[in-house]
Amino acid sequence: MSIEKKISLLDVFEESLKKVDNEIFKRLDATIPLLAEIGTHLIKAKGKRIRPILTLAMAGQLNDFSRNPILLATAVEFIHTATLLHDDVVDESDFRRGVKTANRIWGNEASVLAGDFLFAQSFDLMVETNSLDALSSLSKASCKITQGEFKQMQISNNPNTKIDDYFEVIGGKTAQLFGSACESGIIVANGNEEQINAAHSYGFNIGLAFQIIDDVIDYTLEKNVSGKNIGDDFKLGKTTLPIILAWEKSDKNEKDFWIRTIKLLEQNEKDFEYAKNIMKKYKIIEECKKLASDFINISISSLNVFPENKYKIHLKELANESLMRTK
Amino acid sequence: MSIEKKISLLDVFEESLKKVDNEIFKRLDATIPLLAEIGTHLIKAKGKRIRPILTLAMAGQLNDFSRNPILLATAVEFIHTATLLHDDVVDESDFRRGVKTANRIWGNEASVLAGDFLFAQSFDLMVETNSLDALSSLSKASCKITQGEFKQMQISNNPNTKIDDYFEVIGGKTAQLFGSACESGIIVANGNEEQINAAHSYGFNIGLAFQIIDDVIDYTLEKNVSGKNIGDDFKLGKTTLPIILAWEKSDKNEKDFWIRTIKLLEQNEKDFEYAKNIMKKYKIIEECKKLASDFINISISSLNVFPENKYKIHLKELANESLMRTK
Repeated sequence: MSIEKKISLLDVFEESLKKVDNEIFKRLDATIPLLAEIGTHLIKAKGKRIRPILTLAMAGQLNDFSRNPILLATAVEFIHTATLLHDDVVDESDFRRGVKTANRIWGNEASVLAGDFLFAQSFDLMVETNSLDALSSLSKASCKITQGEFKQMQISNNPNTKIDDYFEVIGGKTAQLFGSACESGIIVANGNEEQINAAHSYGFNIGLAFQIIDDVIDYTLEKNVSGKNIGDDFKLGKTTLPIILAWEKSDKNEKDFWIRTIKLLEQNEKDFEYAKNIMKKYKIIEECKKLASDFINISISSLNVFPENKYKIHLKELANESLMRTK
Repeated sequence: MSIEKKISLLDVFEESLKKVDNEIFKRLDATIPLLAEIGTHLIKAKGKRIRPILTLAMAGQLNDFSRNPILLATAVEFIHTATLLHDDVVDESDFRRGVKTANRIWGNEASVLAGDFLFAQSFDLMVETNSLDALSSLSKASCKITQGEFKQMQISNNPNTKIDDYFEVIGGKTAQLFGSACESGIIVANGNEEQINAAHSYGFNIGLAFQIIDDVIDYTLEKNVSGKNIGDDFKLGKTTLPIILAWEKSDKNEKDFWIRTIKLLEQNEKDFEYAKNIMKKYKIIEECKKLASDFINISISSLNVFPENKYKIHLKELANESLMRTK
C-alpha cells in the first residue's frame, strides 16, 4: 500500500467534470427560480458522478477530449437525475443520500416538472453532438429504465420472484444507463462496432454489480452511513436479490416469515435481525457478492478490445472498486 | 350551407391517423401489461388529435406522405400524452374528457412512469426519422412546455397577474408543441427556412388561441359537456385570461371579491355567478375572443408562403374552427 493518494478517474477528469457542472448550471433556466433552486440543490447533493465519468473515460480511451463527450456526460447525468426526481415522487421518499429530497422541499408538482425539464434538456444536449447514434442509444436506454421500473412494480413485495425477473428489473432501471453512458462515449469518439458493443457490455455489467451491491448493503451495513438507513429496503418489503435468494432456500417456517414481513409488511422490531440470520444461515450475502463479482469480471474482460492506456487501467480499477462499495 | 358532410382534415388523414394508432400500439410494450393497459385507455379516450393532424397536414402541403411524418405525428402525440399524464398527477385530477384519469385508476407511480416511457419513446421515434432538426425542434418544445408549467405554478391563484406572464405560460405549456408539431412536419418534408418559420408561426398562434378559448369555455358553457365541468378553473382559482382581464377593470369591491375567491379560495355557491356577472359587465369574454381571433388571423396569414392546395385550405378552416370550439 502506497501512502500517496491514489489517483482516481475523479481526479483525472476533474477539469472535464467542472465543465459538466458549468453545462448543468447553464441549462437550468435562471428565469425560473424554482428550477434553478432545485438544480443547485441536486448539484450540491451530487453523488459519485460515476455515469458522466464513464462517458468521459470511454471517449478518453479513444483520445476524444472534445466538447461532445462533455455534452453527453451532462445529458447522462440529467437523465439519471430526472429518474431520481421521479423515483422520489413515486416512492414518496423524504431523504436521499442524507439530504432532503426535492419533493419533500418543493412538493411533487415541482419534482415531476423538474424531472421532465432535465429529461427534455438531456435530449437537447444530445442534439448538439449531432450524433443520431448516441441519441438512439440514450433514448432506448431511457425507455428501458422506465420498463425496468414498471417491472419492479410488478414484482414488488413478492419474495417468491424469479431471479430472471430481478435481473430484468435491475438491467432496465440501473444497468442500461451505465451501458449507454459508456456506449455513447465511444460512439461520439468514432469507435468501431466492436468497441461500441464492448463499451456497452462494460457499463451494463458494472451496472448490474452496482445494483446488487446496493441491494446487499441494506443488509450488511453496521450503522447508518450518509443518509442510507440500514434496513430501509426490508421495511418497504423491496424484492431485492438477498430476499429472492433467501426465499429459494428457506424452509416452510422461514417462507412464512418472508410472506408476513415482505408480502404483508407485518413487521415487528426483531424481524430485521431474524431476516439477517436466515441470510447468514444460507450464506446469501456471499452468494450475492459472488454474482456481482462475476459481472465485474465480464465487465473488465470487455475492455480487451481497447488499446492499453491509463484510462483503461482506471476503468478496470473503477470496476473492481464498485465491488467494495459500502455506501 | 351544404347538407353534405363537410370534409375535415380528420377525414383527409384517416388512413395516416390509423398508421399513427398502429405505431402507438406497437410501441406500448406488451410485456408490461400495465403500460399496455394505460396506452389502450389513452387511445380510447383520444381527443381531437389536432397535434398529429397538424404534423401530417404540414408535410402534406409539401407532398410528403412518407413514413417520416407518421413517425413525427406519433412522437408529437406521445409528448402531448406524457404531459397530460404528468399534469394529472400534479393536479391530482380524477377525470379528463369525462374519462377517469390514469392516476385515478393506476396510481401516481404508474402515471409518472408511463409519462416517462412515452416521452422516451417519442425521442426514439424521432431518431428513426434521421432528422436532427426535427429532433431539435421537439426537444426544445419539450423544455418550453415544462418552463411554461413552472411559470404557471408561479402565477397560480394570483388574479393580479400581468397579461405578459399569462402569455408566457400558455406560450410554453400549449403553443410551443402546436408550433413544433407544424414546424417538424415541414422540416422532414424538406421545407425551406421561410416555410419552417411560417409553419411554427401558424401552429404557435393557433396554440395561443386554442388555450384562450379553453380558458374562456370554463366561464361560458351552459352545461357540462363531455367531462368538462363548468367552473372548474374558478373553483381551483386558476389564473386564466378572463380572471386577469377582469381584475384589471375591477373596482375595489370587485378586487376584494377576486382576492377572496381566487387567491384565498374562500368560495360560496353564488360566487361563480357573481364572477360571471363581473365579466359580463366589463365584456371580458368578448375581449378574450377578440384576442384569440387576432392570433388566428396571424396564424392564417402565416400560410401565405405555402403553395395553394387542399391542405392549405383545410389548415385555414382548422384555424377558424378552433375559435368556435365549445369543448
